[in-house]
Amino acid sequence: MKRFKILLIVGDGLGDRQVTQLKGKTPLEAADKPNIKSILNSSIMGLMDPIGPGIVPGSDTSHLAIFGLDPYKYYKGRGSFEALGAGATLNEGDVAFRGNFATVDSEMRIIDRRAGRKIDEAADLVRELNDKINEIEGVKVRFYKGTEHRVSVVLSGDAMSDKVSDTDPHEVGSRVLQSRPIDSSPGSEKTAKIVNALTQRIYQVLSESPINNKRKAEGLPPANIILLRGASIHSELPKLKDYTGLKGAAVSATALIKGVSKSLGMEVITPPGATGGIDTDYMAKADAAIKLLESDYDLVFLHVKATDAASHDGLVSEKVRAIEMIDRVIGKIFDIYGTDLVLLFTGDHATPVELKEHSGDPVPILLYAPVNIIPDELGGFDERQARHGSLKIIGLNIINLLLNYSNRASKYGA
Amino acid sequence: MKRFKILLIVGDGLGDRQVTQLKGKTPLEAADKPNIKSILNSSIMGLMDPIGPGIVPGSDTSHLAIFGLDPYKYYKGRGSFEALGAGATLNEGDVAFRGNFATVDSEMRIIDRRAGRKIDEAADLVRELNDKINEIEGVKVRFYKGTEHRVSVVLSGDAMSDKVSDTDPHEVGSRVLQSRPIDSSPGSEKTAKIVNALTQRIYQVLSESPINNKRKAEGLPPANIILLRGASIHSELPKLKDYTGLKGAAVSATALIKGVSKSLGMEVITPPGATGGIDTDYMAKADAAIKLLESDYDLVFLHVKATDAASHDGLVSEKVRAIEMIDRVIGKIFDIYGTDLVLLFTGDHATPVELKEHSGDPVPILLYAPVNIIPDELGGFDERQARHGSLKIIGLNIINLLLNYSNRASKYGA
Repeated sequence: MKRFKILLIVGDGLGDRQVTQLKGKTPLEAADKPNIKSILNSSIMGLMDPIGPGIVPGSDTSHLAIFGLDPYKYYKGRGSFEALGAGATLNEGDVAFRGNFATVDSEMRIIDRRAGRKIDEAADLVRELNDKINEIEGVKVRFYKGTEHRVSVVLSGDAMSDKVSDTDPHEVGSRVLQSRPIDSSPGSEKTAKIVNALTQRIYQVLSESPINNKRKAEGLPPANIILLRGASIHSELPKLKDYTGLKGAAVSATALIKGVSKSLGMEVITPPGATGGIDTDYMAKADAAIKLLESDYDLVFLHVKATDAASHDGLVSEKVRAIEMIDRVIGKIFDIYGTDLVLLFTGDHATPVELKEHSGDPVPILLYAPVNIIPDELGGFDERQARHGSLKIIGLNIINLLLNYSNRASKYGA
Repeated sequence: MKRFKILLIVGDGLGDRQVTQLKGKTPLEAADKPNIKSILNSSIMGLMDPIGPGIVPGSDTSHLAIFGLDPYKYYKGRGSFEALGAGATLNEGDVAFRGNFATVDSEMRIIDRRAGRKIDEAADLVRELNDKINEIEGVKVRFYKGTEHRVSVVLSGDAMSDKVSDTDPHEVGSRVLQSRPIDSSPGSEKTAKIVNALTQRIYQVLSESPINNKRKAEGLPPANIILLRGASIHSELPKLKDYTGLKGAAVSATALIKGVSKSLGMEVITPPGATGGIDTDYMAKADAAIKLLESDYDLVFLHVKATDAASHDGLVSEKVRAIEMIDRVIGKIFDIYGTDLVLLFTGDHATPVELKEHSGDPVPILLYAPVNIIPDELGGFDERQARHGSLKIIGLNIINLLLNYSNRASKYGA
């Protein structure tokens, strides 16, 4: 019995609704998908509720579910995934914050919450912060560059807590907030105190930075503060290899998803040209996936953010194009690697392009297997056809389906 | 993004099976439903297991599930819901009993378990009981009139328990039973003792009541005892507003359902003419719902008992008529309020009219949304068509679906 390799492709925010601009079709219906069409004769499909019917998933909670971990048990917040995705190594008990480089006046009033958003010198600023701020009152501090104005900040010390409020007031004109403990544990009080001292120290270092002097001279807003939000405490997750036997690798350019993948012990590849946006190099991702399939990985997870990015910006034709490019990715992988694998293609949630936000609608799911499968024999793969497919599942079911159809499942019982 | 209002219509015992008298159609199939038909082009449908596949729900457990509370966690018995529905205010730890006015002989042998069922003087009898019996051995006693022969009895005291047996032998000719503790806690022993003393006291008061002397003179059976059953201890439930953000109101004439709704913190309206029976004034309920939708309620719950009442009595054509009246209620609300709302129409369980009892069959469920929805494009709404719809859910999923399609859901995760 041949054990097939598994290719899991997640189009972020893939699911959608009837779109006026597409004459009532969904983007998945409107997209030309010749490669998907060619494998329907050996596929089943259906609708999947990533967390549960009607529940609006985040990308992090949904990916945990898709990889078989109940988010209600394992999800501790976004900050630590972002930090891992930005390159941090985290230990149990580390507290990670999501941060923005921002611009404040001398009274710490916010002038620009993103310091112009595209900050060419972000890597240099992060380096300078890591050089000059190593610890605050015995707690180790590390900074990691994210995309654009984003930065992750990690605190490592004894008895730290993520039960502290944000310093980000989310409003131009407001002052940077004091972090406060949001429970009565000594760890929260200590952590809030460190966060406030750190914020002062960051302001001091960045205000005096020659990089910011140069930005000011060029008429750019100085990145003279980091606004912190979404504290989350790192807690080790079970590793995919341990609970499924699958050696996994991820191809992604999105910090959050890279972080989730790393948390599960997967190798993470971001090929040059992969951006996490609608301008990503799809074929570079396909090539990376092929290389991983050809090496000793059992499961290759290819994540495409473009579908979600287009949806949040309301770009209908870009979403259709992103789906068509995913179809080409599938075509390229099958052309070069061969069809000797199990493919699962779905979304982590719907982001209806007219809604521009995540929704709790079910998402279409397609499962191809080279043998082993009684096909659903439907004419196409989209939200409408998927209703007539044989799958009606939740995200937590996916890993078991993949193990089953790839001939890798173990019997439960005797 | 517009947040729609929500109209939830539950036809009690709506679900059914193939009915001989309807040539194999179900009552929902046989009913003429022009208003429902007119909204199918923007609706999805399916089958719902209120508790789980095959589980026969009570109306109380099912409504808890429909409102998002797991009955296995929150359900403590029917008595406290009935008492709340009859007008009681309950505190944590109060013990409520369902009661019947009944007729016994001088040896407390039952002559009529319902004292003739329709007791015109029930309100006066309850008033007399409340005047003459305030407490038994330090435990406060209150009586609340229900429909016909029904009465709720509430005991308030320290360390009371609902683990006591009924005094109702459920059999004519048997003697009123002694209540006994059914576990070994001191609270149960104490409560059983109070119940037995209370029963003696009730007999004494009612036997001497001039109201009963008048009844006897008129040849009517005296209502000279209250048979008690179904003790349940009151425990505060989570409030709908707190766990969903929805400000809710209920339109119902059924004590049990009114009690469940009150327990969840909802406003409860019983318009004049609403009876909880097949003779109810449907349009008065529609008007009440419209008024609530036009005020600041986010969710209006309209409960119709007639479908269940007809089913328990085996009245096929009355059940069909009740469904046709629900269709007219929907039409009237949409005509006057407009279609700018999310509608969910379902049953709390099946009560097959040939079975005359609740069953564990799945019930059909219809969800209309003015936008946001990819319709199921089925020709009608009934048990048979619903199998081909996209919904396949349990009762606990309903609230999340309503929040999602009314644009009121919060994202879980990032």
